[in-house]
Amino acid sequence: MLNDAAPVTLREVGLRDGLQGIKAILPTARKIEWVEKEHAAGVREIEVGSFVPAHLLPQLADTAEVLAFARTLPGLVASVLVPNLKGAEHALDAGADLMLIPLSANHAHSLANLRKTPDEVVAEVRRIRAARDASGARTVIEGGVGTAFGCTLQGRVEPDEVLRLLQALLDAGADRVSLADTVGYADPDMVSKLFERALRLVGDRLCCGHFHDTRGLALANICAAMALGISRFDASLAGIGGCPHAPGASGNAASEDLAYMLAAMGRAPDLDVAALLALRGEVAQWLTGEPLHGALWRAGLPKDFNHHASQP
Amino acid sequence: MLNDAAPVTLREVGLRDGLQGIKAILPTARKIEWVEKEHAAGVREIEVGSFVPAHLLPQLADTAEVLAFARTLPGLVASVLVPNLKGAEHALDAGADLMLIPLSANHAHSLANLRKTPDEVVAEVRRIRAARDASGARTVIEGGVGTAFGCTLQGRVEPDEVLRLLQALLDAGADRVSLADTVGYADPDMVSKLFERALRLVGDRLCCGHFHDTRGLALANICAAMALGISRFDASLAGIGGCPHAPGASGNAASEDLAYMLAAMGRAPDLDVAALLALRGEVAQWLTGEPLHGALWRAGLPKDFNHHASQP
Repeated sequence: MLNDAAPVTLREVGLRDGLQGIKAILPTARKIEWVEKEHAAGVREIEVGSFVPAHLLPQLADTAEVLAFARTLPGLVASVLVPNLKGAEHALDAGADLMLIPLSANHAHSLANLRKTPDEVVAEVRRIRAARDASGARTVIEGGVGTAFGCTLQGRVEPDEVLRLLQALLDAGADRVSLADTVGYADPDMVSKLFERALRLVGDRLCCGHFHDTRGLALANICAAMALGISRFDASLAGIGGCPHAPGASGNAASEDLAYMLAAMGRAPDLDVAALLALRGEVAQWLTGEPLHGALWRAGLPKDFNHHASQP
Repeated sequence: MLNDAAPVTLREVGLRDGLQGIKAILPTARKIEWVEKEHAAGVREIEVGSFVPAHLLPQLADTAEVLAFARTLPGLVASVLVPNLKGAEHALDAGADLMLIPLSANHAHSLANLRKTPDEVVAEVRRIRAARDASGARTVIEGGVGTAFGCTLQGRVEPDEVLRLLQALLDAGADRVSLADTVGYADPDMVSKLFERALRLVGDRLCCGHFHDTRGLALANICAAMALGISRFDASLAGIGGCPHAPGASGNAASEDLAYMLAAMGRAPDLDVAALLALRGEVAQWLTGEPLHGALWRAGLPKDFNHHASQP
């Protein structure tokens, strides 16, 4: 019996969320190779970088070049992170398919990470929406609410505040919104409860979940959100990334692990998990000495994996 | 709002499934300390060893002594693994609360691991049941069907065969049965499907799930089984263990990670996760040089963890 549940999209964020936390600068040619091979493995959404000042994140200074390459690949949705209007103007000029504006539900984290309060970010989204509309570009605006399940600086974050900010982002002109467990505090029960409330509030404009694997729960949390119909998740190859404000944070959901889980469940018919695993090996060599994560690379794929995926 | 879902039991199997795969022999005093501290942390079911010939598993040769100590702890269910009637007679003599008889659904694995076919194991369970009844002991008999989701030797294992063996074990006199993903091939979708069929067949005599974290899915798989009402799971501190016939196998679900997840979800009110994490650190020192697993130890508990657990 084939599982006829809807496919789930894996959005690769390693080139942005991953590389921004690594001091070494990956050469542009490597980034392009990464994007090209991930696309060849069937990944159709990739966050290629951030439009932030190069002196703040020299690792991502070549975002425009990587984006220009990504735009040549058929069917690929190439996204970038932008922290403000200036970054958004770069993204519009460069023809990004999507720009993600991060917002921290927690005030202290917001000030530490973005030097703005959450409501100042909402106001910036309003300006970004005006700029997008004036430009005639079709770049999608996604507002991403981070520290949605708690924060290392403050502890608990009120779900009511998270929901208020989701609505505020949409009211300010975001096309869609997402929820991020920036510091790895979520558990499957919290995910069920918050995503259920968020879906009731904003429906399918809630487009994505972003889970860190800090405490080993990224894949379980993704399953909890999938059970509610969420069908897009961020992940990074080799699990690189994490929040500089979360001590001991052990990275994102690993793309190869998520791809394996989705493929095994019949939810990612177009992903070539073996190819992603091979690319993970290459990226690991490029990043020698950096802390990497994930489980699948150690064990490899199950015997007869292709048959395995459709087991009744 | 407090989560009023039923508590879930964590059964510690590190002293058996974990230590049997580690060459170094942990001194009996350390094992007793481990059992005592785990009990103090709120764990109420511990598999303390195996009754197998000492020349085969010298690491577990002191099972009777560890069991005798475990029996002195109030409220603790002390279990042992027994591979055959002879082992069962030891378990009955020693007053084990429960004996687990493993069975591999896969023929090749069964012969490699137990030197018996699955149906020969069923026949042995019948003899064990007769011995238990004749002895007057109240030792519970659990039949554990392993390689239930596939096998490194054979690949796919037929769910129909797994279900047949569950029923055969009960018919032969097992009081209850459990399912094990011995080699880490399960995914949440397979877990849902097989546990659902098994529950339809044997009801609440299906008492436990045993998941290896070989490909990072142990906790997601546990959540899938919890969603069907399964309320007992095996785990080992620091994730030690794995199957000698599963190359690259990266161990069991880590007790401290499972305890954290359950506590966060309000499903383990009596577990002291911080105490388990501290014990994990001690066990790691005792096992210096051995491959350990798990995620929580790296990051620690979230800030304000106690409040966090009841977040709406």
